[in-house]
Amino acid sequence: MTTAFADRVAVACRGKGNSLCVGIDPRPDLLPLGLRVPASEGLEGLAAAYETFSLRVLELVAPLVPIVKPQSAFFEACGPAGMKAQQRILQRARELGLLTILDNKRNDVASTAEAYADAAFAGTLLDGVRHPIWQADSMTINPYMGRDAVEPFIAAARRTQGGVFVLVRTSNKGAGQFQNLESDGKPLYRHVAEAVGAWANEQLASCGYGDVGAVVGATHPRELALIRQWIPQVVFLVPGYGAQGGGAADVAAGFRDDGLGAIINSSRGIIAAFKPDDAKWETKIVDAAKAAIDDLRQSTPMGKLRG
Amino acid sequence: MTTAFADRVAVACRGKGNSLCVGIDPRPDLLPLGLRVPASEGLEGLAAAYETFSLRVLELVAPLVPIVKPQSAFFEACGPAGMKAQQRILQRARELGLLTILDNKRNDVASTAEAYADAAFAGTLLDGVRHPIWQADSMTINPYMGRDAVEPFIAAARRTQGGVFVLVRTSNKGAGQFQNLESDGKPLYRHVAEAVGAWANEQLASCGYGDVGAVVGATHPRELALIRQWIPQVVFLVPGYGAQGGGAADVAAGFRDDGLGAIINSSRGIIAAFKPDDAKWETKIVDAAKAAIDDLRQSTPMGKLRG
Repeated sequence: MTTAFADRVAVACRGKGNSLCVGIDPRPDLLPLGLRVPASEGLEGLAAAYETFSLRVLELVAPLVPIVKPQSAFFEACGPAGMKAQQRILQRARELGLLTILDNKRNDVASTAEAYADAAFAGTLLDGVRHPIWQADSMTINPYMGRDAVEPFIAAARRTQGGVFVLVRTSNKGAGQFQNLESDGKPLYRHVAEAVGAWANEQLASCGYGDVGAVVGATHPRELALIRQWIPQVVFLVPGYGAQGGGAADVAAGFRDDGLGAIINSSRGIIAAFKPDDAKWETKIVDAAKAAIDDLRQSTPMGKLRG
Repeated sequence: MTTAFADRVAVACRGKGNSLCVGIDPRPDLLPLGLRVPASEGLEGLAAAYETFSLRVLELVAPLVPIVKPQSAFFEACGPAGMKAQQRILQRARELGLLTILDNKRNDVASTAEAYADAAFAGTLLDGVRHPIWQADSMTINPYMGRDAVEPFIAAARRTQGGVFVLVRTSNKGAGQFQNLESDGKPLYRHVAEAVGAWANEQLASCGYGDVGAVVGATHPRELALIRQWIPQVVFLVPGYGAQGGGAADVAAGFRDDGLGAIINSSRGIIAAFKPDDAKWETKIVDAAKAAIDDLRQSTPMGKLRG
């Protein structure tokens, strides 16, 4: 890994001709019937089913998309066995040439944040040797605790040419409760966005973007357009497209004219694009990913990435 | 578990005559030499050493304090084996009659937050049966994403007579970057504090406190006093006493006159109260816990809890 994170993202997106990210968010009732494990096998059985399903999803989407995003909550919900599954899924994604975003929204005071960040990136240091854990290319983090709680994640990411995505304007309905509070004439999410912009400026890649990104939900198109103007050098991770209600038109303003700048995540819209009893679930996943790519290429600057 | 969370906290604190919480934050270089495992045994060896040490700490402090707080970052930093250690430590704490705060600062959109919350409290539901994971009495959460991202944690806590502690004013130096931004004449942390107060009011226990608590750092004594005035019905989890620099006088304002209302956490001040080569490290831990209790009882309303 010798290229800055934003350049690695740009190369991957140009290579695939899109910036669709497939969210790996497995749930018991969305698994194909054929992969289910009896409930009597408990959380270890569930973790095994999640792993089998997720690995197959990775193989199906690896030829199509540049990036995947495992949602850590669903693996934690299988207990320690789920954490092993998460580890193998991240490893397999790397082997398949996919970039990874570990979506775990970590945050803590500096010395504790370092432990989370080491786990996500280079690994835990023991007697001078790094022991890898998640080996993610990037992770999501929560900014509420402020700069000294955020910076250890950025520093750890930079040591592995990785990146972080800071929550700025999240996709959920109640996101505005605190994020929209105005101070000095600017909503909180703008203060956070400007901090993200300053962090990104510390190390811009040759593609013009930084290694500190922003999470900006597709469900707030007006804010997405504003934030794009405020921090043009920041890569956005855009959740909320597809199952959460955001359409291609809603995410278009997240891109820059070069077709880069926005990674559009779809989770259930792809990995649950079938009924559990559908024997052709694998085809449905591939079709859903292709349809999302076509939709985004037609209605957003993403279409400029190749063609 | 048939008593509301705040009553369980009150009973435990009155029973022990204090509200000191011992933070379980193990680190490689703070372990007693005799418990260390060669680095060649990797993260599984580290997890085993953390577990042995933490279980011994629990036994040492269980006769003295009401509550312990495992810091999830340090267990995650051992990978999946660390998660198993965290599980056994939480289980042993329960067996010893200690209340537990799982300090993992989780946050996500509603349906994903549910997965984290189920993991923390009742367990993951499979075919109508709950499969326990952490079985914590309470957990810490981050409010940045707003009400619909917070409420699933509160709902899950209530199903097990558990509680949550919402980050309000954190103990780190840079906490003010966003938390101090003023909107409508109030800093962000006051907006969050008032939301916490409203959530706590939804279900007050007979002791007069709610099951939604607030994390308020000892390193900001003035803010601690203000927040106590704004939301008298909220239990505070106060980090930053001891190694982080807060003294007993700094945390006094976190209590109410009844001697309740503030859980004072000390991590390194207790579990690292010895040099690694000290054969009497167990005695040092006990002495440090006793000294902290004496200090707090002399200089805060905690002294009213028993005597």
